[in-house]
Amino acid sequence: MATLCEKILQAHLVEGTYEKGKQIGIKIDQTLTQDATGTMAYLQLEAMGIDKVKTERSMSYVDHNTLQSGFENADDHKYLQTVANAYGVYFSKPGNGICHQVHLERFAAPGKTLLGSDSHTPTAGGIGAIAMGAGGLDVACAMAGRPFFLTTPQVVNVNLTGKLRKGVSAKDIILKVLQLMSVKGGVGKIVEYGGPGIESLSIPERATICNMGAELGATTSIFPSDEITKDFLKKQNREDAWVELKADEDAIYDEVFHIDLDALEPMIAMPHSPDAVVPVSEVEGMHVDQVAIGSCTNSSLRDLTIVGNILEGKQVDSSVSLVISPGSKQVLQMITQNGALSNMISSGARILEATCGPCIGMGQSPITNALSLRTFNRNFYGRSGTLSAKVCLVSPETAAASALTGVITDPRKVDFELPSDVDAFMIDDSMILTPDCDKEKEIVRGPNIKPLPINTPLDDHIHKKVMIKVEDNITTDHIAPAGAKVLPYRSNIEKISEFIFMNNKPDFDKVCKEYGGGYIIAGANYGQGSSREHAALAPMYLGIKAVIAKSFARIHKANLVNFGILPLTFDNEADYDTIDEMDDLDINNLDQLAVDTPLMVINQTKDKTYTVHHGLSQYDIDIIKAGGTLNYIKAMQ
Amino acid sequence: MATLCEKILQAHLVEGTYEKGKQIGIKIDQTLTQDATGTMAYLQLEAMGIDKVKTERSMSYVDHNTLQSGFENADDHKYLQTVANAYGVYFSKPGNGICHQVHLERFAAPGKTLLGSDSHTPTAGGIGAIAMGAGGLDVACAMAGRPFFLTTPQVVNVNLTGKLRKGVSAKDIILKVLQLMSVKGGVGKIVEYGGPGIESLSIPERATICNMGAELGATTSIFPSDEITKDFLKKQNREDAWVELKADEDAIYDEVFHIDLDALEPMIAMPHSPDAVVPVSEVEGMHVDQVAIGSCTNSSLRDLTIVGNILEGKQVDSSVSLVISPGSKQVLQMITQNGALSNMISSGARILEATCGPCIGMGQSPITNALSLRTFNRNFYGRSGTLSAKVCLVSPETAAASALTGVITDPRKVDFELPSDVDAFMIDDSMILTPDCDKEKEIVRGPNIKPLPINTPLDDHIHKKVMIKVEDNITTDHIAPAGAKVLPYRSNIEKISEFIFMNNKPDFDKVCKEYGGGYIIAGANYGQGSSREHAALAPMYLGIKAVIAKSFARIHKANLVNFGILPLTFDNEADYDTIDEMDDLDINNLDQLAVDTPLMVINQTKDKTYTVHHGLSQYDIDIIKAGGTLNYIKAMQ
Repeated sequence: MATLCEKILQAHLVEGTYEKGKQIGIKIDQTLTQDATGTMAYLQLEAMGIDKVKTERSMSYVDHNTLQSGFENADDHKYLQTVANAYGVYFSKPGNGICHQVHLERFAAPGKTLLGSDSHTPTAGGIGAIAMGAGGLDVACAMAGRPFFLTTPQVVNVNLTGKLRKGVSAKDIILKVLQLMSVKGGVGKIVEYGGPGIESLSIPERATICNMGAELGATTSIFPSDEITKDFLKKQNREDAWVELKADEDAIYDEVFHIDLDALEPMIAMPHSPDAVVPVSEVEGMHVDQVAIGSCTNSSLRDLTIVGNILEGKQVDSSVSLVISPGSKQVLQMITQNGALSNMISSGARILEATCGPCIGMGQSPITNALSLRTFNRNFYGRSGTLSAKVCLVSPETAAASALTGVITDPRKVDFELPSDVDAFMIDDSMILTPDCDKEKEIVRGPNIKPLPINTPLDDHIHKKVMIKVEDNITTDHIAPAGAKVLPYRSNIEKISEFIFMNNKPDFDKVCKEYGGGYIIAGANYGQGSSREHAALAPMYLGIKAVIAKSFARIHKANLVNFGILPLTFDNEADYDTIDEMDDLDINNLDQLAVDTPLMVINQTKDKTYTVHHGLSQYDIDIIKAGGTLNYIKAMQ
Repeated sequence: MATLCEKILQAHLVEGTYEKGKQIGIKIDQTLTQDATGTMAYLQLEAMGIDKVKTERSMSYVDHNTLQSGFENADDHKYLQTVANAYGVYFSKPGNGICHQVHLERFAAPGKTLLGSDSHTPTAGGIGAIAMGAGGLDVACAMAGRPFFLTTPQVVNVNLTGKLRKGVSAKDIILKVLQLMSVKGGVGKIVEYGGPGIESLSIPERATICNMGAELGATTSIFPSDEITKDFLKKQNREDAWVELKADEDAIYDEVFHIDLDALEPMIAMPHSPDAVVPVSEVEGMHVDQVAIGSCTNSSLRDLTIVGNILEGKQVDSSVSLVISPGSKQVLQMITQNGALSNMISSGARILEATCGPCIGMGQSPITNALSLRTFNRNFYGRSGTLSAKVCLVSPETAAASALTGVITDPRKVDFELPSDVDAFMIDDSMILTPDCDKEKEIVRGPNIKPLPINTPLDDHIHKKVMIKVEDNITTDHIAPAGAKVLPYRSNIEKISEFIFMNNKPDFDKVCKEYGGGYIIAGANYGQGSSREHAALAPMYLGIKAVIAKSFARIHKANLVNFGILPLTFDNEADYDTIDEMDDLDINNLDQLAVDTPLMVINQTKDKTYTVHHGLSQYDIDIIKAGGTLNYIKAMQ
């Protein structure tokens, strides 16, 4: 009666017992990093003093900071390439594609565990892997052979029946799931897909669904490994990686959702949240300024061939800027040869490099007050680089159809051919460099690669002021913005700390420096979104000692622990309302920090006392006391 | 006994007489703008109060600011699109290609005059047009139907004999010419190509030569219009634009150079000047970090097909980042279909959008201390976005061969096929929007589009300090840097003035503001390079009243006049050495400014007096006295 994820997690269990709500440690088979989080991960790996990574395969991808508006990004890439070679990590050169797309094509495998320093690592769940996002430090620990710790999750079953109609796609399924579950609905859970409906879903379609499962706050999402999985692997010349995997017939789930694919219609997430989902038909006709197709969610060969078919022989509306970023070298090569690229070019699309691109605000910021339709996974406020823009998330079908009309358009009204299956994918791994682990070769560190800041051990008290108070659903994009102006500094914590909360409180860094840091007060689901540990590391650098929130997103909470910041939750959520910025808060007796023991917070300014809990395991507590994971590991050596 | 350029200029003469050294006014048939200079040009056009452009064809291209790391660029594009529609200008959407490549393909014609707000407008000389770069204001004046004023040029003949050997290309010819003439050698001159050697040069090859003629400081460069021209136009479905044009047999030239193409070898311009040219064989084997192929100089179908052929079946060296930007939608579409793109992708090249891209520092900045080989036209210090980088200029053949080996490589050592001629180009102008001149439609101005600053009429004296003193060969890139961080502000003079001389004197704007502006003291060839009028407009905004230099580049001098700044030249160049920054300089009696009359400059700090001349025509003097061309035109109305 085991679920699929239980089977895989049990097979990888190295610490703890598989019991819901309890912390377990699992063996990680594969890791991946990308360049925006990777430099920090490898600096941390270097600090651990190991000789060579201990995983089955560790990959270092470059897909985020590829505009290179200064030496910083190129220097980061050079560091990543040379450090990867030294430590036995495979390096995917810039231009080879988006980490999740390339990993799905070439390396992800059913039954394996994958930890990635990117929140969309669950993409590989489409092929039957347990694939999770984590902070760079957790990925560095996994590369060093340490287990990855997580809370044994609840398991949600999404039961699919029927078959998608033409014009409705996998993206619409996950948008529907987001509508049902919300961006907080997956916290502490793994989402397992099943039912007869999955038989008509290809691996890239399943991957789209698992990819954007990250927006549920879920630990990960997963599909069974079946004949479709086998067929995909065979066409990628990796048939030997296939094993059949599925949940037991009588598996028991904590929650079950049913979606009838026959009845599903095209969906759209309206600004500024991936769960603000309505049917496309409800908003048809709204004027569109920009359409952006691509990202790790929707840049597969299938997606882009459909886009090419919709655009074939037609013209993009004169008022629309259509940009398309292929997902990988394999996809770009295959659309070059199957005619889809020609159709896109003829229609007036702008063809960008095979990278994350506009999805992480790396270029293609739309016009002031734009409505931008994107096939991406996140439409957080400001992420596009244009604060006044309204970003909506849609399927490639809806995106392409709307680019032609200049208004939001239901793709069921458009005539196009669905692509037939390919006989084989074009295999070309020549942009993936095999490491030789030669320690004599120089690890090249440009002037933007700064040493890691390290926290100090936890004091027995925190008597500090509230540096900022923020509302519900604050994302790591709010805390540590991405985009072309900030991402170049991802290896330079001192510099990046100037941008922390820049759209909420532009002088946050200065206030922290003036008062020597203090507290962050937050609403529910604090730290949702990207896995970037900079959202913990830079506040740590600025002296933040504790975050008190209504609730936390999983990865961000783990990142706070990793850098020695206390993640605390109000026992009584109404206490949130009684705290203001610059209030003086005291926590005492932290030398007695213990499992399942609440803490008292005294608000000296308001003369109130609050009870908060931390939910930390003994292992987490030991890390916090040491001042973070790196200190903890060093102390153990 | 007329030269080719005399024939075309005479046919367009509307003011003055064609006499060397005298100012003439000519009718402009076509204009082009790009987005980095175009916003200012159209703001100026709007200020002129005309209803519709008066040229045969005016084009507005978008090719520079295409990364869009914020709303500014997209807003500029929207402004350009909507203002073009209102005034009868054809708008080429971003993604359609680089202005000079697209214009050559689709609109440039033998015997026509073309004025462009980009210094590489001479590209169209390859097809037999008199094509000149100018400041945006001059282009706006031409659109408004006013003549373009220039000094009747000296004419240089470059006589080509023999035939290029495989591995040696048109780029090597212009690099050789730069070696012979230097970056100052073309000032006040037009370069006319002729001789039996031209018979084996296709139009794109001739265009490459004329394009980089800008680096000679020449007014323009031109080839005869012959059967090769006719064939190119026919294949672009524009045969009716053809006329035969050549110099008279007994034409008399001011200078003649001979180049034997049989004996020419691959050439390379070393950092940091396009005339620091040596044979590739002299520097073979130097390690290369980046190779960048594209730009208006070398992104034609022929260039990129050769690159594809060199890369076919081979791999880019693991330590090299190879980036390729196609020149136009036509080129991208044709390399997609002829297999060259596939070869590039397979080899490990990164494929960028069809724009100027890294040539203007718009992304792809190389690593710290990089050696970057580029097929571009300029290797000025800092232009790549990485101040420590060394940029070398080479042919596409040398670039591709070196990308494979990772060291500077003579392409004659590489085995590849030369492409055969195509039967026809793929014609698709669907990204070029035809204006309807509907004045009811809104001209959209985003918040980055600021009103034009306007100068005040010339005072009768200038008693001011020297704000900066700079050496020889200062480029407009030094004065008003390009690159991804600065270009977004091209419609915002207040903001862009913060970046003026940022690499020479970072606080230049602050010093100017403190002292209310003053003088710039410069060496020889001041203002070479790009045509950007921001290098005059922003100093004007900061209160610069006069530039005293050893000599000026043509376009920049015209831009200074356009914005009411006095361009003065030392009678005795040694006087330059006696002036320091912050010296107090006085010029008096400017109400008596007159043609052929020198001015006295009193250095109050050093107690010295200098004689300077201005070389201005009466028309120029009237403009300077009015405080610039816009004031002058308004006063006339």
